[in-house]
Amino acid sequence: MKRGADLPAARARPKLGRLNIELLNTGSELMLGRVLNTHQQWLCRRLADLGYVVTRQVAVPDTAHDIQSAVREALSRADLIIATGGLGPTSDDVTRDLIAQLLGKKLRLDDAVLNHIKRRFAARSLPMPKNNEVQALVPEGAMVLANPNGTAPGLAIEIESQTGRAGLPPGQDAQQRVPTSPFRAAWLVMLPGPPRELRPMFDNFVVPLLRREFPLAAPFVCRTLRTSGIAESLVQEKIEAPLNTLAVAGLEIGYCARTGQVDVRLSARGGNGGKIVRAAEAIVQKILGAQIYGFDNEEMETVVVRLLTGRKKTLAMAESCTGGCIAHRVTNVPGASAVFPGGWVVYSNESKQKFLGVRAETLAAHGAVSEAVAREMAEGARLQLGADFAIAVTGIAGPGGGTKEKPVGTVFIGLAGEFGTVIEHKFNPYERETFKEVTAWQALEMLRVRLVCS
Amino acid sequence: MKRGADLPAARARPKLGRLNIELLNTGSELMLGRVLNTHQQWLCRRLADLGYVVTRQVAVPDTAHDIQSAVREALSRADLIIATGGLGPTSDDVTRDLIAQLLGKKLRLDDAVLNHIKRRFAARSLPMPKNNEVQALVPEGAMVLANPNGTAPGLAIEIESQTGRAGLPPGQDAQQRVPTSPFRAAWLVMLPGPPRELRPMFDNFVVPLLRREFPLAAPFVCRTLRTSGIAESLVQEKIEAPLNTLAVAGLEIGYCARTGQVDVRLSARGGNGGKIVRAAEAIVQKILGAQIYGFDNEEMETVVVRLLTGRKKTLAMAESCTGGCIAHRVTNVPGASAVFPGGWVVYSNESKQKFLGVRAETLAAHGAVSEAVAREMAEGARLQLGADFAIAVTGIAGPGGGTKEKPVGTVFIGLAGEFGTVIEHKFNPYERETFKEVTAWQALEMLRVRLVCS
Repeated sequence: MKRGADLPAARARPKLGRLNIELLNTGSELMLGRVLNTHQQWLCRRLADLGYVVTRQVAVPDTAHDIQSAVREALSRADLIIATGGLGPTSDDVTRDLIAQLLGKKLRLDDAVLNHIKRRFAARSLPMPKNNEVQALVPEGAMVLANPNGTAPGLAIEIESQTGRAGLPPGQDAQQRVPTSPFRAAWLVMLPGPPRELRPMFDNFVVPLLRREFPLAAPFVCRTLRTSGIAESLVQEKIEAPLNTLAVAGLEIGYCARTGQVDVRLSARGGNGGKIVRAAEAIVQKILGAQIYGFDNEEMETVVVRLLTGRKKTLAMAESCTGGCIAHRVTNVPGASAVFPGGWVVYSNESKQKFLGVRAETLAAHGAVSEAVAREMAEGARLQLGADFAIAVTGIAGPGGGTKEKPVGTVFIGLAGEFGTVIEHKFNPYERETFKEVTAWQALEMLRVRLVCS
Repeated sequence: MKRGADLPAARARPKLGRLNIELLNTGSELMLGRVLNTHQQWLCRRLADLGYVVTRQVAVPDTAHDIQSAVREALSRADLIIATGGLGPTSDDVTRDLIAQLLGKKLRLDDAVLNHIKRRFAARSLPMPKNNEVQALVPEGAMVLANPNGTAPGLAIEIESQTGRAGLPPGQDAQQRVPTSPFRAAWLVMLPGPPRELRPMFDNFVVPLLRREFPLAAPFVCRTLRTSGIAESLVQEKIEAPLNTLAVAGLEIGYCARTGQVDVRLSARGGNGGKIVRAAEAIVQKILGAQIYGFDNEEMETVVVRLLTGRKKTLAMAESCTGGCIAHRVTNVPGASAVFPGGWVVYSNESKQKFLGVRAETLAAHGAVSEAVAREMAEGARLQLGADFAIAVTGIAGPGGGTKEKPVGTVFIGLAGEFGTVIEHKFNPYERETFKEVTAWQALEMLRVRLVCS
């Protein structure tokens, strides 16, 4: 709470060709592949939604050399650096100390932070481990960003432009000094690693700081159209020429492909940005039609829940090889309970028979992975729950269980409704988890197309 | 297929303090937060398992300036650079061209690659879009890494040490030259973005290249102990002093915390590495005991399936608020079908009553989110499937549905077995998806403790 509140609303800042925002994710666990860097996606998307683009993201292990050289390099380029991690209480949480040392700032014990940490432990009737005290150390001149969801506060430091030598405060051993490097004027923000601490802190403190210190020069407009069932190169071939005039006027087009899906991102800056993006969207809509399944950050399951809700329809599910993946995705959507009464995971033949009424003869004649069983599963699930639609999936997720006729990746997806029952036979020869995700996506896409086109 | 095969087995290479391996992930979709960078985790983990540590990972958007400056900087530090993405057929796939330009290498059309691409389209009875031709362009002197799972081949380039100016071939406009930068001798590998193309290519081509070009100086041993139910600072406080002697002998200790879990990573290099790590593991095992739930990359669900399999026990599941998340996690484990006959997602009160025999009076007296309903759900699921154990979960995932007495995050987890039924009342006040993941984890941990300690 040291600075910031008393800063003038729109400080003079060197006008730049573009604003350079860099993320620095510290953590040996990242470099060892122990954890997935979800901070990058979350922070980049949040910033993009606000019209700011991250120009570089760097991850380094928790060593003095790596962290300090990464920060020094970022300071030579960036206007805003957002560093994550390394603020915890254990011996490998060194980011705060190393950055303070690099900037030549002393650490002081902040009583307010220390009391906050003590209160958190007291509230759980736990003694505060001595280690946690380091989390109350704050570099001189840094703004403290309160952390209601954890012990480590965030820190924001405004860095003055420096052209001389940076390193330890004068008088200390010159051997320990870090090499010469000029610093540009910049803000350096340090956020704690746990997502449920980082995310509210970003929204509550970093977004206002960004808006105040780096107001956008021109409005920014962006729209993503998410397509299914069409290859990336074909999407481009179909839409590029028709969008040419708008591209000349400032439209930017980006593509992002995943299995069976391609996102088309349309964006533009400036006063005409909104008009350009809306015109581009209309053109792409006309060309791709129902192959567009959603917009912006909408997931397939969100679209399906929205369509079911709008049509007051319910969905049941009987999953064999996807093992709950479809239900899990549908129930990730807030409000899913209004359209999803429930479902089954029927891994064994017995459960398919007992709960869904799949007939022993059908299993014997066709095997569990067959069009006939997918049909009886879908119809049984719909009947049992009295739902408008039912999805059923049976297949071979692997790695074992494949045969010559039905290799790993074979899957039958059934969709039952008032219209009857349709079955699609797919082949998804991917490793187990990808197989489940791709199959779940295909099943939801089948339902979406039915809902949109009927 | 140009080079590499004829290289001597152990080429002279400058001895370095450490081997610098850098990852470069290119893609505007990464910087816009459209996709999660799963390559980082996958490649870092694979490399760590082989005894190589990634010293830096960088992600940049698909622009000439960003890609070329990132590659140039990496070449000033790294011995091996692994670049991912930007080898696709659309206009934003520019990595290959930009790297060739930076290195002053011309692109040539590789007939073998072009034929491979044509065959892939022909096999699907599709015409090859003209755009895909660019994927057959190969920088001069580059090794082509075959891609049986997609169109774009990978590329590996051995870079000679350069101290002069790098950029366009001589004779071209000096204005377009990139700034002076000395290159160290290094390998630069370019891999395609889709995971199912990148992963086998890494295993089949990059791992052998790594072993040949960068053989490890000393053996490397690493072991991760995964703990649950104990805070990061407390784990450190308990084990640090007892491990002190081993730390002096070269043991490295790392911590990685997530909600309710802490990973302790023990590693050492050199001839005594194995002995040091085994001694450290024995010490930590003795101190933390059953709080260690798994080892290395083992997930909680893998441990539970392993324990159930070893004890020949089966598990049923009745999920309300987790909506299939527990079943999804359990069925991610190969071989789950031997211990998991099936389960229910019972989102509505009707389905709880109809399928699990939860009584209307219990629902009326206590509400769906209650100890009593969790108990009846668990016992009903166990009975219906004749399973040895059943897990049941009922709670309020949010964002809606909370009350003063039962706020969002309230959850009851039931575990039924021969021993009877136990219920745990938890409070997980996180956003919806985190709530589901944390609750699923707690439910599996309850079962694990029961399996281990009985």
